[in-house]
Amino acid sequence: MARVSKKEMEAFFSREFPRANFVLEAFDEDSVTIRRKVETEDLRPGGTVSGPTMMGLADCAIYLTILREIGLVAHAATTSLNVNFLRKPVADKDILGVCKILKLGKTLAVGEVTIYSEGDDRPIAHSVGTYSIPPC
Amino acid sequence: MARVSKKEMEAFFSREFPRANFVLEAFDEDSVTIRRKVETEDLRPGGTVSGPTMMGLADCAIYLTILREIGLVAHAATTSLNVNFLRKPVADKDILGVCKILKLGKTLAVGEVTIYSEGDDRPIAHSVGTYSIPPC
Amino acid sequence: MARVSKKEMEAFFSREFPRANFVLEAFDEDSVTIRRKVETEDLRPGGTVSGPTMMGLADCAIYLTILREIGLVAHAATTSLNVNFLRKPVADKDILGVCKILKLGKTLAVGEVTIYSEGDDRPIAHSVGTYSIPPC
Amino acid sequence: MARVSKKEMEAFFSREFPRANFVLEAFDEDSVTIRRKVETEDLRPGGTVSGPTMMGLADCAIYLTILREIGLVAHAATTSLNVNFLRKPVADKDILGVCKILKLGKTLAVGEVTIYSEGDDRPIAHSVGTYSIPPC
Repeated sequence: MARVSKKEMEAFFSREFPRANFVLEAFDEDSVTIRRKVETEDLRPGGTVSGPTMMGLADCAIYLTILREIGLVAHAATTSLNVNFLRKPVADKDILGVCKILKLGKTLAVGEVTIYSEGDDRPIAHSVGTYSIPPC
Repeated sequence: MARVSKKEMEAFFSREFPRANFVLEAFDEDSVTIRRKVETEDLRPGGTVSGPTMMGLADCAIYLTILREIGLVAHAATTSLNVNFLRKPVADKDILGVCKILKLGKTLAVGEVTIYSEGDDRPIAHSVGTYSIPPC
Repeated sequence: MARVSKKEMEAFFSREFPRANFVLEAFDEDSVTIRRKVETEDLRPGGTVSGPTMMGLADCAIYLTILREIGLVAHAATTSLNVNFLRKPVADKDILGVCKILKLGKTLAVGEVTIYSEGDDRPIAHSVGTYSIPPC
Repeated sequence: MARVSKKEMEAFFSREFPRANFVLEAFDEDSVTIRRKVETEDLRPGGTVSGPTMMGLADCAIYLTILREIGLVAHAATTSLNVNFLRKPVADKDILGVCKILKLGKTLAVGEVTIYSEGDDRPIAHSVGTYSIPPC
Protein backbone atom coordinates (compact mmCIF):
# COMPACT_ATOMS: atom_id res chain seq x y z
CA MET A 1 0.00 0.00 0.00
CA ALA A 2 1.42 3.37 -1.01
CA ARG A 3 1.67 5.91 1.72
CA VAL A 4 -0.61 8.95 1.62
CA SER A 5 1.31 11.98 0.31
CA LYS A 6 1.46 15.31 2.12
CA LYS A 7 -0.71 16.91 -0.59
CA GLU A 8 -3.36 14.18 -0.38
CA MET A 9 -3.39 14.53 3.40
CA GLU A 10 -3.81 18.30 3.24
CA ALA A 11 -6.74 17.94 0.84
CA PHE A 12 -8.38 15.31 3.05
CA PHE A 13 -7.79 17.27 6.20
CA SER A 14 -9.20 20.58 4.94
CA ARG A 15 -12.27 18.73 3.62
CA GLU A 16 -12.97 16.63 6.73
CA PHE A 17 -11.80 19.06 9.43
CA PRO A 18 -12.42 22.52 7.91
CA ARG A 19 -12.12 24.23 11.32
CA ALA A 20 -8.89 22.58 12.41
CA ASN A 21 -6.06 24.99 12.96
CA PHE A 22 -3.12 22.67 12.34
CA VAL A 23 -0.52 22.90 9.60
CA LEU A 24 1.24 19.81 8.25
CA GLU A 25 4.81 20.85 8.76
CA ALA A 26 6.78 17.80 7.65
CA PHE A 27 6.25 14.26 6.37
CA ASP A 28 9.56 12.59 7.09
CA GLU A 29 10.45 8.97 6.52
CA ASP A 30 9.60 7.89 10.08
CA SER A 31 7.76 10.86 11.58
CA VAL A 32 5.09 13.47 10.92
CA THR A 33 5.34 17.00 12.31
CA ILE A 34 2.36 19.30 12.73
CA ARG A 35 2.26 22.92 13.86
CA ARG A 36 -0.40 24.84 15.73
CA LYS A 37 -0.55 28.57 16.24
CA VAL A 38 -1.29 29.37 19.88
CA GLU A 39 -4.27 31.73 20.16
CA THR A 40 -5.27 33.90 23.10
CA GLU A 41 -8.04 31.45 23.97
CA ASP A 42 -5.46 28.65 24.31
CA LEU A 43 -3.65 30.42 27.15
CA ARG A 44 -4.00 29.77 30.86
CA PRO A 45 -3.28 32.01 33.86
CA GLY A 46 0.46 32.63 34.07
CA GLY A 47 0.79 32.97 30.30
CA THR A 48 1.12 29.27 29.53
CA VAL A 49 -0.50 27.11 26.88
CA SER A 50 -3.44 25.07 28.19
CA GLY A 51 -3.14 21.31 28.60
CA PRO A 52 -6.11 20.59 26.31
CA THR A 53 -4.45 22.60 23.52
CA MET A 54 -1.43 20.30 23.71
CA MET A 55 -3.63 17.20 24.02
CA GLY A 56 -5.52 18.25 20.90
CA LEU A 57 -2.23 18.62 19.05
CA ALA A 58 -1.09 15.19 20.23
CA ASP A 59 -4.35 13.51 19.26
CA CYS A 60 -4.32 15.09 15.80
CA ALA A 61 -0.66 14.24 15.20
CA ILE A 62 -1.25 10.57 15.99
CA TYR A 63 -4.36 10.49 13.80
CA LEU A 64 -2.53 11.93 10.79
CA THR A 65 0.52 9.72 11.25
CA ILE A 66 -1.62 6.59 11.35
CA LEU A 67 -3.75 7.69 8.38
CA ARG A 68 -0.61 8.27 6.37
CA GLU A 69 0.05 4.54 6.69
CA ILE A 70 -3.41 3.01 6.52
CA GLY A 71 -5.09 5.40 4.08
CA LEU A 72 -7.60 8.20 4.49
CA VAL A 73 -10.30 6.62 6.61
CA ALA A 74 -12.05 9.32 8.60
CA HIS A 75 -13.50 6.95 11.18
CA ALA A 76 -10.37 5.77 12.98
CA ALA A 77 -11.11 6.55 16.65
CA THR A 78 -8.91 7.27 19.64
CA THR A 79 -9.25 4.56 22.28
CA SER A 80 -6.77 5.97 24.80
CA LEU A 81 -4.37 8.85 25.22
CA ASN A 82 -1.76 9.46 27.89
CA VAL A 83 -0.01 12.84 28.23
CA ASN A 84 2.84 13.97 30.46
CA PHE A 85 3.42 17.70 30.75
CA LEU A 86 7.13 18.34 31.05
CA ARG A 87 7.96 22.04 30.89
CA LYS A 88 6.11 25.33 30.75
CA PRO A 89 5.36 26.19 27.12
CA VAL A 90 6.21 29.64 25.75
CA ALA A 91 3.02 31.69 25.38
CA ASP A 92 3.88 33.53 22.18
CA LYS A 93 5.37 30.68 20.16
CA ASP A 94 3.67 28.07 17.98
CA ILE A 95 3.68 24.52 19.28
CA LEU A 96 4.97 21.62 17.21
CA GLY A 97 4.15 17.92 17.57
CA VAL A 98 6.46 15.25 16.17
CA CYS A 99 4.80 11.83 15.92
CA LYS A 100 6.23 8.36 15.33
CA ILE A 101 4.34 5.11 14.99
CA LEU A 102 5.06 2.55 17.72
CA LYS A 103 2.73 -0.15 16.41
CA LEU A 104 0.58 -0.56 13.34
CA GLY A 105 -1.60 -3.62 13.84
CA LYS A 106 -4.73 -4.80 12.09
CA THR A 107 -7.13 -3.38 14.67
CA LEU A 108 -5.00 -1.07 16.84
CA ALA A 109 -2.27 1.46 16.10
CA VAL A 110 -0.12 3.24 18.68
CA GLY A 111 1.76 6.51 18.17
CA GLU A 112 4.09 8.59 20.28
CA VAL A 113 4.23 12.40 20.10
CA THR A 114 6.81 14.81 21.46
CA ILE A 115 5.63 18.42 21.71
CA TYR A 116 7.86 21.50 21.56
CA SER A 117 7.52 25.28 21.70
CA GLU A 118 9.01 26.55 18.46
CA GLY A 119 12.70 27.37 18.78
CA ASP A 120 13.39 25.24 21.88
CA ASP A 121 14.46 21.61 21.55
CA ARG A 122 13.49 20.63 25.11
CA PRO A 123 10.08 18.89 24.97
CA ILE A 124 7.14 20.60 26.71
CA ALA A 125 4.94 17.48 26.62
CA HIS A 126 5.00 13.85 25.58
CA SER A 127 2.02 11.73 24.64
CA VAL A 128 1.23 8.16 23.65
CA GLY A 129 -2.11 7.34 22.08
CA THR A 130 -3.95 4.35 20.65
CA TYR A 131 -6.37 4.43 17.73
CA SER A 132 -8.72 1.63 16.71
CA ILE A 133 -8.65 0.96 12.99
CA PRO A 134 -12.05 0.28 11.43
CA PRO A 135 -12.37 -3.01 9.51
CA CYS A 136 -12.00 -2.53 5.74
CA MET B 1 -9.39 24.73 55.87
CA ALA B 2 -12.93 25.37 54.70
CA ARG B 3 -13.84 24.07 51.29
CA VAL B 4 -14.48 26.54 48.50
CA SER B 5 -18.22 26.98 47.95
CA LYS B 6 -19.93 26.60 44.59
CA LYS B 7 -20.57 30.35 44.44
CA GLU B 8 -16.95 31.24 45.21
CA MET B 9 -15.80 28.78 42.55
CA GLU B 10 -18.13 30.24 39.95
CA ALA B 11 -16.87 33.76 40.65
CA PHE B 12 -13.23 32.64 40.45
CA PHE B 13 -13.82 30.64 37.31
CA SER B 14 -15.59 33.36 35.35
CA ARG B 15 -12.84 35.82 36.36
CA GLU B 16 -9.86 33.59 35.53
CA PHE B 17 -11.29 31.65 32.60
CA PRO B 18 -13.77 34.06 30.98
CA ARG B 19 -13.90 32.02 27.75
CA ALA B 20 -14.46 28.63 29.34
CA ASN B 21 -17.74 27.02 28.35
CA PHE B 22 -18.27 24.83 31.39
CA VAL B 23 -21.09 25.00 33.93
CA LEU B 24 -20.62 23.86 37.52
CA GLU B 25 -23.44 21.37 37.76
CA ALA B 26 -23.04 19.96 41.27
CA PHE B 27 -20.78 20.20 44.30
CA ASP B 28 -21.51 16.99 46.16
CA GLU B 29 -19.83 15.75 49.31
CA ASP B 30 -17.30 13.58 47.49
CA SER B 31 -17.59 14.64 43.85
CA VAL B 32 -17.86 17.65 41.54
CA THR B 33 -19.90 17.53 38.32
CA ILE B 34 -19.40 19.90 35.41
CA ARG B 35 -21.36 20.21 32.19
CA ARG B 36 -20.28 21.29 28.73
CA LYS B 37 -22.51 22.10 25.81
CA VAL B 38 -21.29 20.32 22.68
CA GLU B 39 -20.87 22.82 19.82
CA THR B 40 -20.62 22.11 16.09
CA GLU B 41 -16.88 22.67 16.23
CA ASP B 42 -16.54 19.90 18.85
CA LEU B 43 -17.86 17.25 16.48
CA ARG B 44 -15.87 14.78 14.42
CA PRO B 45 -16.77 12.89 11.23
CA GLY B 46 -19.54 10.40 12.00
CA GLY B 47 -21.33 12.82 14.34
CA THR B 48 -19.31 12.08 17.47
CA VAL B 49 -17.77 14.39 20.05
CA SER B 50 -14.02 14.90 19.55
CA GLY B 51 -11.53 13.36 21.96
CA PRO B 52 -9.93 16.73 22.83
CA THR B 53 -13.36 18.07 23.85
CA MET B 54 -13.69 15.26 26.38
CA MET B 55 -10.06 15.65 27.49
CA GLY B 56 -10.67 19.36 28.09
CA LEU B 57 -13.70 18.51 30.21
CA ALA B 58 -11.69 15.95 32.20
CA ASP B 59 -8.81 18.34 32.79
CA CYS B 60 -11.14 21.12 33.93
CA ALA B 61 -13.14 18.82 36.21
CA ILE B 62 -10.00 17.65 38.00
CA TYR B 63 -8.72 21.22 38.32
CA LEU B 64 -11.95 22.43 39.92
CA THR B 65 -12.26 19.44 42.23
CA ILE B 66 -8.73 19.93 43.54
CA LEU B 67 -9.16 23.70 43.90
CA ARG B 68 -12.31 23.12 45.91
CA GLU B 69 -10.10 21.38 48.49
CA ILE B 70 -6.89 23.41 48.41
CA GLY B 71 -8.30 26.89 47.76
CA LEU B 72 -8.44 29.11 44.68
CA VAL B 73 -4.86 29.05 43.41
CA ALA B 74 -4.85 29.61 39.68
CA HIS B 75 -1.38 28.18 39.09
CA ALA B 76 -1.95 24.52 39.90
CA ALA B 77 -0.70 22.74 36.77
CA THR B 78 -1.52 19.40 35.16
CA THR B 79 1.47 17.08 35.20
CA SER B 80 -0.17 14.08 33.52
CA LEU B 81 -3.51 12.98 32.14
CA ASN B 82 -4.66 9.58 30.97
CA VAL B 83 -7.93 9.12 29.08
CA ASN B 84 -9.74 5.99 27.92
CA PHE B 85 -12.53 6.48 25.41
CA LEU B 86 -15.24 3.93 26.11
CA ARG B 87 -18.33 4.52 23.97
CA LYS B 88 -19.41 6.79 21.17
CA PRO B 89 -20.82 10.01 22.63
CA VAL B 90 -24.18 11.33 21.46
CA ALA B 91 -23.65 14.32 19.15
CA ASP B 92 -26.60 16.44 20.24
CA LYS B 93 -26.34 16.00 24.00
CA ASP B 94 -24.27 17.91 26.56
CA ILE B 95 -21.42 16.02 28.15
CA LEU B 96 -21.02 15.74 31.92
CA GLY B 97 -17.87 15.01 33.93
CA VAL B 98 -18.07 13.64 37.47
CA CYS B 99 -14.78 13.96 39.36
CA LYS B 100 -13.56 12.42 42.61
CA ILE B 101 -10.26 13.00 44.38
CA LEU B 102 -8.03 9.93 44.63
CA LYS B 103 -5.18 11.65 46.44
CA LEU B 104 -4.61 15.07 47.94
CA GLY B 105 -0.95 15.36 48.89
CA LYS B 106 1.22 18.33 49.69
CA THR B 107 2.74 18.60 46.20
CA LEU B 108 0.59 16.33 44.03
CA ALA B 109 -3.13 15.68 43.76
CA VAL B 110 -4.80 12.98 41.67
CA GLY B 111 -8.40 12.99 40.46
CA GLU B 112 -10.56 10.56 38.53
CA VAL B 113 -13.29 11.67 36.11
CA THR B 114 -16.10 9.68 34.52
CA ILE B 115 -17.68 11.33 31.47
CA TYR B 116 -21.24 10.80 30.27
CA SER B 117 -23.51 11.99 27.49
CA GLU B 118 -26.53 13.53 29.19
CA GLY B 119 -29.33 11.07 29.77
CA ASP B 120 -27.22 7.89 29.49
CA ASP B 121 -25.59 6.37 32.54
CA ARG B 122 -23.01 4.32 30.61
CA PRO B 123 -19.69 6.24 30.65
CA ILE B 124 -18.33 7.50 27.32
CA ALA B 125 -14.84 8.18 28.71
CA HIS B 126 -12.79 7.84 31.89
CA SER B 127 -9.79 9.89 32.86
CA VAL B 128 -7.22 10.09 35.64
CA GLY B 129 -5.08 13.18 36.00
CA THR B 130 -2.39 14.55 38.29
CA TYR B 131 -1.92 18.18 39.24
CA SER B 132 1.10 19.67 40.93
CA ILE B 133 0.18 21.98 43.78
CA PRO B 134 2.25 25.15 44.01
CA PRO B 135 4.01 25.75 47.36
CA CYS B 136 2.08 28.20 49.54
CA MET C 1 -24.06 -15.82 28.44
CA ALA C 2 -23.85 -16.90 32.06
CA ARG C 3 -21.15 -15.34 34.12
CA VAL C 4 -18.25 -17.49 35.26
CA SER C 5 -18.71 -18.51 38.90
CA LYS C 6 -16.08 -18.00 41.58
CA LYS C 7 -15.45 -21.76 41.74
CA GLU C 8 -15.02 -22.09 37.99
CA MET C 9 -12.62 -19.17 38.02
CA GLU C 10 -10.56 -20.65 40.83
CA ALA C 11 -10.27 -23.95 38.98
CA PHE C 12 -9.25 -22.20 35.75
CA PHE C 13 -6.80 -19.95 37.53
CA SER C 14 -4.98 -22.67 39.44
CA ARG C 15 -4.73 -24.71 36.22
CA GLU C 16 -3.50 -21.92 33.93
CA PHE C 17 -1.45 -19.90 36.44
CA PRO C 18 -0.21 -22.46 38.96
CA ARG C 19 2.44 -20.09 40.32
CA ALA C 20 0.18 -17.09 40.80
CA ASN C 21 -0.08 -15.95 44.38
CA PHE C 22 -3.47 -14.28 44.27
CA VAL C 23 -6.63 -15.26 46.12
CA LEU C 24 -10.09 -14.54 44.74
CA GLU C 25 -11.55 -12.64 47.64
CA ALA C 26 -14.99 -11.63 46.38
CA PHE C 27 -17.16 -11.85 43.28
CA ASP C 28 -19.70 -9.08 43.82
CA GLU C 29 -22.41 -7.99 41.46
CA ASP C 30 -20.34 -5.22 39.88
CA SER C 31 -16.80 -5.82 41.14
CA VAL C 32 -14.19 -8.50 41.71
CA THR C 33 -11.74 -8.34 44.64
CA ILE C 34 -8.44 -10.18 44.74
CA ARG C 35 -5.89 -10.41 47.53
CA ARG C 36 -2.14 -10.85 47.43
CA LYS C 37 0.13 -11.65 50.32
CA VAL C 38 3.11 -9.30 50.36
CA GLU C 39 6.37 -11.31 50.49
CA THR C 40 9.81 -10.10 51.50
CA GLU C 41 10.85 -10.01 47.85
CA ASP C 42 8.01 -7.58 47.08
CA LEU C 43 9.40 -4.93 49.40
CA ARG C 44 11.48 -1.92 48.45
CA PRO C 45 13.89 0.20 50.52
CA GLY C 46 11.96 2.06 53.19
CA GLY C 47 9.69 -0.91 53.87
CA THR C 48 7.19 -0.25 51.13
CA VAL C 49 5.57 -2.56 48.58
CA SER C 50 7.17 -2.35 45.13
CA GLY C 51 5.35 -0.72 42.24
CA PRO C 52 5.54 -3.84 40.06
CA THR C 53 3.85 -5.87 42.81
CA MET C 54 0.89 -3.50 42.71
CA MET C 55 0.92 -3.41 38.90
CA GLY C 56 0.83 -7.20 38.80
CA LEU C 57 -2.16 -7.18 41.13
CA ALA C 58 -3.93 -4.59 38.95
CA ASP C 59 -3.25 -6.49 35.75
CA CYS C 60 -4.51 -9.75 37.24
CA ALA C 61 -7.62 -8.15 38.73
CA ILE C 62 -8.62 -6.68 35.36
CA TYR C 63 -7.96 -9.99 33.61
CA LEU C 64 -10.16 -11.94 36.01
CA THR C 65 -12.93 -9.37 35.98
CA ILE C 66 -13.10 -9.41 32.19
CA LEU C 67 -12.91 -13.21 32.01
CA ARG C 68 -15.79 -13.46 34.44
CA GLU C 69 -17.91 -11.70 31.78
CA ILE C 70 -16.57 -13.12 28.51
CA GLY C 71 -15.73 -16.65 29.61
CA LEU C 72 -12.49 -18.45 30.39
CA VAL C 73 -10.31 -17.61 27.40
CA ALA C 74 -6.70 -17.67 28.47
CA HIS C 75 -5.42 -15.61 25.55
CA ALA C 76 -6.97 -12.24 26.31
CA ALA C 77 -3.97 -9.88 26.31
CA THR C 78 -3.28 -6.57 28.01
CA THR C 79 -2.87 -3.77 25.47
CA SER C 80 -2.27 -0.92 27.91
CA LEU C 81 -2.10 -0.25 31.63
CA ASN C 82 -1.90 3.02 33.50
CA VAL C 83 -1.12 3.15 37.23
CA ASN C 84 -1.06 6.02 39.69
CA PHE C 85 0.60 5.40 43.04
CA LEU C 86 -1.26 7.32 45.69
CA ARG C 87 0.00 6.49 49.20
CA LYS C 88 2.73 4.43 50.77
CA PRO C 89 1.53 0.84 51.23
CA VAL C 90 1.91 -0.88 54.58
CA ALA C 91 4.76 -3.42 54.41
CA ASP C 92 3.26 -6.13 56.60
CA LYS C 93 -0.30 -6.14 55.27
CA ASP C 94 -1.78 -7.97 52.29
CA ILE C 95 -2.83 -5.83 49.35
CA LEU C 96 -6.32 -5.96 47.86
CA GLY C 97 -7.46 -4.95 44.39
CA VAL C 98 -11.09 -4.11 43.66
CA CYS C 99 -11.89 -4.10 39.94
CA LYS C 100 -14.87 -2.79 38.00
CA ILE C 101 -15.52 -3.03 34.27
CA LEU C 102 -15.66 0.33 32.47
CA LYS C 103 -16.29 -1.07 29.00
CA LEU C 104 -16.93 -4.50 27.59
CA GLY C 105 -16.76 -4.27 23.80
CA LYS C 106 -16.39 -6.90 21.13
CA THR C 107 -12.63 -6.44 20.71
CA LEU C 108 -11.58 -4.32 23.71
CA ALA C 109 -12.48 -4.32 27.39
CA VAL C 110 -11.46 -1.69 29.95
CA GLY C 111 -11.30 -2.17 33.70
CA GLU C 112 -10.51 0.05 36.66
CA VAL C 113 -8.80 -1.18 39.83
CA THR C 114 -8.44 0.47 43.20
CA ILE C 115 -5.72 -1.01 45.42
CA TYR C 116 -5.68 -0.96 49.22
CA SER C 117 -3.50 -2.17 52.06
CA GLU C 118 -5.68 -4.42 54.16
CA GLY C 119 -7.44 -2.56 56.94
CA ASP C 120 -7.13 0.94 55.47
CA ASP C 121 -9.82 2.32 53.18
CA ARG C 122 -7.63 5.00 51.62
CA PRO C 123 -6.41 3.71 48.22
CA ILE C 124 -2.66 3.13 47.78
CA ALA C 125 -2.87 2.90 43.99
CA HIS C 126 -5.35 3.20 41.13
CA SER C 127 -5.07 1.58 37.73
CA VAL C 128 -6.93 1.48 34.43
CA GLY C 129 -6.13 -1.21 31.90
CA THR C 130 -7.30 -2.37 28.49
CA TYR C 131 -7.42 -5.96 27.30
CA SER C 132 -7.93 -7.10 23.73
CA ILE C 133 -10.47 -9.88 23.44
CA PRO C 134 -9.57 -12.65 21.00
CA PRO C 135 -12.12 -13.34 18.26
CA CYS C 136 -14.31 -16.37 19.08
CA MET D 1 27.00 17.16 39.76
CA ALA D 2 28.92 14.23 38.32
CA ARG D 3 26.87 11.42 36.94
CA VAL D 4 26.85 8.08 38.71
CA SER D 5 29.13 5.62 36.91
CA LYS D 6 28.07 2.17 35.80
CA LYS D 7 30.26 0.59 38.47
CA GLU D 8 28.85 2.76 41.26
CA MET D 9 25.34 1.93 40.10
CA GLU D 10 26.03 -1.80 40.05
CA ALA D 11 27.40 -1.67 43.59
CA PHE D 12 24.41 0.34 44.82
CA PHE D 13 21.95 -1.88 43.04
CA SER D 14 23.29 -5.19 44.31
CA ARG D 15 23.37 -3.76 47.87
CA GLU D 16 19.86 -2.23 47.85
CA PHE D 17 18.08 -4.74 45.62
CA PRO D 18 19.92 -8.03 46.21
CA ARG D 19 17.12 -10.09 44.67
CA ALA D 20 16.68 -8.05 41.49
CA ASN D 21 17.38 -9.99 38.32
CA PHE D 22 18.40 -7.13 36.06
CA VAL D 23 21.76 -6.53 34.42
CA LEU D 24 22.98 -3.05 33.57
CA GLU D 25 23.68 -3.51 29.89
CA ALA D 26 24.76 -0.03 28.79
CA PHE D 27 25.20 3.49 30.14
CA ASP D 28 25.17 5.60 26.99
CA GLU D 29 25.33 9.36 26.79
CA ASP D 30 21.55 9.82 26.65
CA SER D 31 20.14 6.41 27.54
CA VAL D 32 20.45 3.49 29.93
CA THR D 33 19.82 -0.11 28.81
CA ILE D 34 18.98 -2.92 31.21
CA ARG D 35 18.51 -6.62 30.49
CA ARG D 36 16.36 -9.21 32.20
CA LYS D 37 16.47 -12.94 31.71
CA VAL D 38 12.96 -14.31 31.20
CA GLU D 39 12.27 -17.17 33.61
CA THR D 40 9.59 -19.84 33.38
CA GLU D 41 7.58 -18.03 36.04
CA ASP D 42 7.46 -14.89 33.84
CA LEU D 43 5.61 -16.66 31.06
CA ARG D 44 1.89 -16.60 30.33
CA PRO D 45 -0.35 -19.02 28.45
CA GLY D 46 0.60 -19.02 24.77
CA GLY D 47 4.31 -18.79 25.57
CA THR D 48 4.51 -15.03 25.96
CA VAL D 49 6.20 -12.85 28.59
CA SER D 50 3.77 -11.53 31.22
CA GLY D 51 2.81 -7.88 31.29
CA PRO D 52 4.01 -7.39 34.89
CA THR D 53 7.46 -8.70 33.91
CA MET D 54 7.74 -5.95 31.31
CA MET D 55 6.28 -3.36 33.69
CA GLY D 56 8.87 -4.31 36.29
CA LEU D 57 11.61 -3.86 33.70
CA ALA D 58 10.22 -0.46 32.69
CA ASP D 59 9.94 0.74 36.29
CA CYS D 60 13.48 -0.36 37.10
CA ALA D 61 14.93 1.19 33.94
CA ILE D 62 13.38 4.57 34.74
CA TYR D 63 14.55 4.39 38.35
CA LEU D 64 18.15 3.69 37.35
CA THR D 65 18.19 6.31 34.62
CA ILE D 66 16.96 8.99 37.01
CA LEU D 67 19.34 7.90 39.78
CA ARG D 68 22.23 8.14 37.35
CA GLU D 69 21.47 11.86 37.11
CA ILE D 70 20.39 12.77 40.64
CA GLY D 71 22.65 10.46 42.66
CA LEU D 72 22.05 7.24 44.54
CA VAL D 73 18.99 8.02 46.65
CA ALA D 74 17.10 4.83 47.32
CA HIS D 75 13.83 6.55 48.20
CA ALA D 76 12.81 8.04 44.86
CA ALA D 77 9.29 6.68 44.35
CA THR D 78 7.21 5.99 41.27
CA THR D 79 4.15 8.23 41.13
CA SER D 80 2.71 6.97 37.84
CA LEU D 81 3.48 4.52 35.08
CA ASN D 82 1.81 4.03 31.73
CA VAL D 83 2.56 1.00 29.55
CA ASN D 84 1.46 0.10 26.03
CA PHE D 85 2.01 -3.48 24.92
CA LEU D 86 2.88 -3.49 21.24
CA ARG D 87 3.89 -6.95 20.03
CA LYS D 88 4.08 -10.46 21.41
CA PRO D 89 7.46 -10.98 23.11
CA VAL D 90 9.58 -14.00 22.28
CA ALA D 91 9.40 -16.53 25.13
CA ASP D 92 12.98 -17.75 25.05
CA LYS D 93 14.81 -14.45 24.65
CA ASP D 94 15.93 -11.94 27.25
CA ILE D 95 14.09 -8.63 27.30
CA LEU D 96 15.90 -5.29 27.08
CA GLY D 97 14.68 -1.87 28.23
CA VAL D 98 16.19 1.32 26.80
CA CYS D 99 15.37 4.39 28.90
CA LYS D 100 15.72 8.11 28.15
CA ILE D 101 14.95 11.00 30.45
CA LEU D 102 12.13 13.27 29.26
CA LYS D 103 12.25 15.66 32.22
CA LEU D 104 14.46 16.10 35.23
CA GLY D 105 12.84 18.63 37.53
CA LYS D 106 13.41 19.45 41.17
CA THR D 107 10.55 17.32 42.47
CA LEU D 108 9.51 15.15 39.50
CA ALA D 109 11.40 13.28 36.83
CA VAL D 110 9.89 11.58 33.78
CA GLY D 111 11.46 8.78 31.75
CA GLU D 112 10.50 6.88 28.64
CA VAL D 113 11.36 3.21 28.07
CA THR D 114 11.23 1.13 24.92
CA ILE D 115 11.29 -2.64 25.50
CA TYR D 116 12.58 -5.23 23.04
CA SER D 117 13.01 -9.01 22.84
CA GLU D 118 16.71 -9.59 22.24
CA GLY D 119 17.58 -9.78 18.57
CA ASP D 120 14.49 -7.98 17.25
CA ASP D 121 14.47 -4.20 16.81
CA ARG D 122 10.67 -3.86 16.77
CA PRO D 123 9.54 -2.75 20.23
CA ILE D 124 7.35 -5.14 22.26
CA ALA D 125 6.28 -2.48 24.77
CA HIS D 126 6.64 1.23 25.50
CA SER D 127 6.33 2.89 28.87
CA VAL D 128 6.42 6.37 30.37
CA GLY D 129 6.84 6.80 34.10
CA THR D 130 7.13 9.58 36.66
CA TYR D 131 9.22 9.45 39.82
CA SER D 132 9.04 11.90 42.68
CA ILE D 133 12.46 13.03 43.85
CA PRO D 134 12.86 13.30 47.63
CA PRO D 135 14.01 16.70 48.93
CA CYS D 136 17.76 16.79 49.67
